[in-house]
Amino acid sequence: MSKLVIVGTVAFDAIETPFGKTDKILGGAATFIGLAASYFNIDAAAVSVVGGDFPQEYLDLLANKNIDISGIEIVKDGKTFFWKGRYHNDMNSRDTLITELNTLADFSPVVPGDYKDAEVVMLGNLHPLVQASVLDQITNKPKMVILDTMNFWMDCALDDLLNVIKRVDVITINDEEARQLTGEYSLLVAAEKIQTMGPKYVVIKKGEHGALLFHKDQAFYAPALPLKEVFDPTGAGDTFAGGFAGYLAKTNDFSFENMKQAVIYGSTLASFCVEKFGTERTQNLSNKEVYERLLQFKQLTQFEIEIA
Amino acid sequence: MSKLVIVGTVAFDAIETPFGKTDKILGGAATFIGLAASYFNIDAAAVSVVGGDFPQEYLDLLANKNIDISGIEIVKDGKTFFWKGRYHNDMNSRDTLITELNTLADFSPVVPGDYKDAEVVMLGNLHPLVQASVLDQITNKPKMVILDTMNFWMDCALDDLLNVIKRVDVITINDEEARQLTGEYSLLVAAEKIQTMGPKYVVIKKGEHGALLFHKDQAFYAPALPLKEVFDPTGAGDTFAGGFAGYLAKTNDFSFENMKQAVIYGSTLASFCVEKFGTERTQNLSNKEVYERLLQFKQLTQFEIEIA
Repeated sequence: MSKLVIVGTVAFDAIETPFGKTDKILGGAATFIGLAASYFNIDAAAVSVVGGDFPQEYLDLLANKNIDISGIEIVKDGKTFFWKGRYHNDMNSRDTLITELNTLADFSPVVPGDYKDAEVVMLGNLHPLVQASVLDQITNKPKMVILDTMNFWMDCALDDLLNVIKRVDVITINDEEARQLTGEYSLLVAAEKIQTMGPKYVVIKKGEHGALLFHKDQAFYAPALPLKEVFDPTGAGDTFAGGFAGYLAKTNDFSFENMKQAVIYGSTLASFCVEKFGTERTQNLSNKEVYERLLQFKQLTQFEIEIA
Repeated sequence: MSKLVIVGTVAFDAIETPFGKTDKILGGAATFIGLAASYFNIDAAAVSVVGGDFPQEYLDLLANKNIDISGIEIVKDGKTFFWKGRYHNDMNSRDTLITELNTLADFSPVVPGDYKDAEVVMLGNLHPLVQASVLDQITNKPKMVILDTMNFWMDCALDDLLNVIKRVDVITINDEEARQLTGEYSLLVAAEKIQTMGPKYVVIKKGEHGALLFHKDQAFYAPALPLKEVFDPTGAGDTFAGGFAGYLAKTNDFSFENMKQAVIYGSTLASFCVEKFGTERTQNLSNKEVYERLLQFKQLTQFEIEIA
């Protein structure tokens, strides 16, 4: 088993979908990643910042999932990062209504002492300089560094982003972002180009169309499970990343074959995430229901081919 | 082995893509379906109509692939159906520039005597009344009737379409059309609704995102192979359908497990179709290259899961 350190936001989200709306609820990349990774009962720590307005019960929730929260700084006289968004009817696109950076604006991450030798590092979506600062604090060479990012940083901090991308093993990115980063429409060509920028592995997330893993001339495709209803997509990408990183940390096996399994676990956990608002579904998962959904993935994708 | 009868257009296409353009070349649903199905060396017949302007070499091409062309009516003083289209830069959307129905406007299909007892019937995209007329001519109950259609018929001949849909076993349709036909956004729910309309099996084509097969509570997902370049998507859906129908006819096994294989074969043949203009790639396929691509599909999708 490897230790996993996660950096990312711990935040308030307010969400509107065609199915309903929430007040401020628990959100943030590190939250979703941490909850997904905690499914594997590994040693994990979250590095983040919140304000004095952040409820103790949310911190307790993370701690009770065996997530080390000593790296979550509490700025007593500050406010917690807040995002409010509204999903369109297709649930694939959304408008950001409010973004209040608050304490995140001056966030200077501090990795807890016990996690400076973490073997797996998950850099959740944040300013690339913050992601780089976490890497600078890792004393041993990690077995695997995974970076998630988004188009926002390509638009306004591209050089910093390219610098941190050089230092990671895996990048997770969505299809449009992969195209933006490389100027290539074909995801296969885009993934090849990204591999020349640093990451040996490229995971391209396609939302309802699943996820692709690329490495050299190998490719692996995991569909998204067809669902009757997508209730709230918020955090699905982070939950995918948390399942992916958590499975690798748990199994301590970084082969391509095992990364395929990590992609399937990530997709499985993400398929739960979208069924309810926020973290509600992901924080209450039994082994049995995860196992049943893994079997569904198997039935959905596995076949025997006979040569006709 | 089952006999396969195919109805659909045999046509001229003129295609513009960001990579180049063609004059009038061989096209049409029955052409692509027939060429894909001919890969399996089965007894197949095409039912269609062309004008006196249709080159003998195109008819010879089909006949040399062991496709019975006695059901392709030649209207000596008529002109062949012609479609001209231009693909956008993303290759996923296109504008129709010209549609000349010509002899297709008065097409009354006649199934050759030898094929009135065909076990597999592939109704390519055409007016639903023409599709129904072919079914009326089949004397025995076929083992499998497969229908392909498009949004155009939902817009302008919905009642006729619903009537023929009642009579088929499998429908192949794209994702937007499945949503239009049912008013449901979730493809899972849409597929359930379509199964109450007649077809026991629903194949939803998602272009670059692959294809889904639904039957009762079972689902199967075949990705599209990630390609470096999509040169010309024309005929990919028909090629998929032809591979699907041809494989079922060849194996004479209509179980869900075998239909999974049929979906993989359809996807494999379609992945070749898009690599060159028109039928160029599909009409020259070796067993070896198809086999290699089937292996690629296997590597792309197959995994062993260990319970973490």
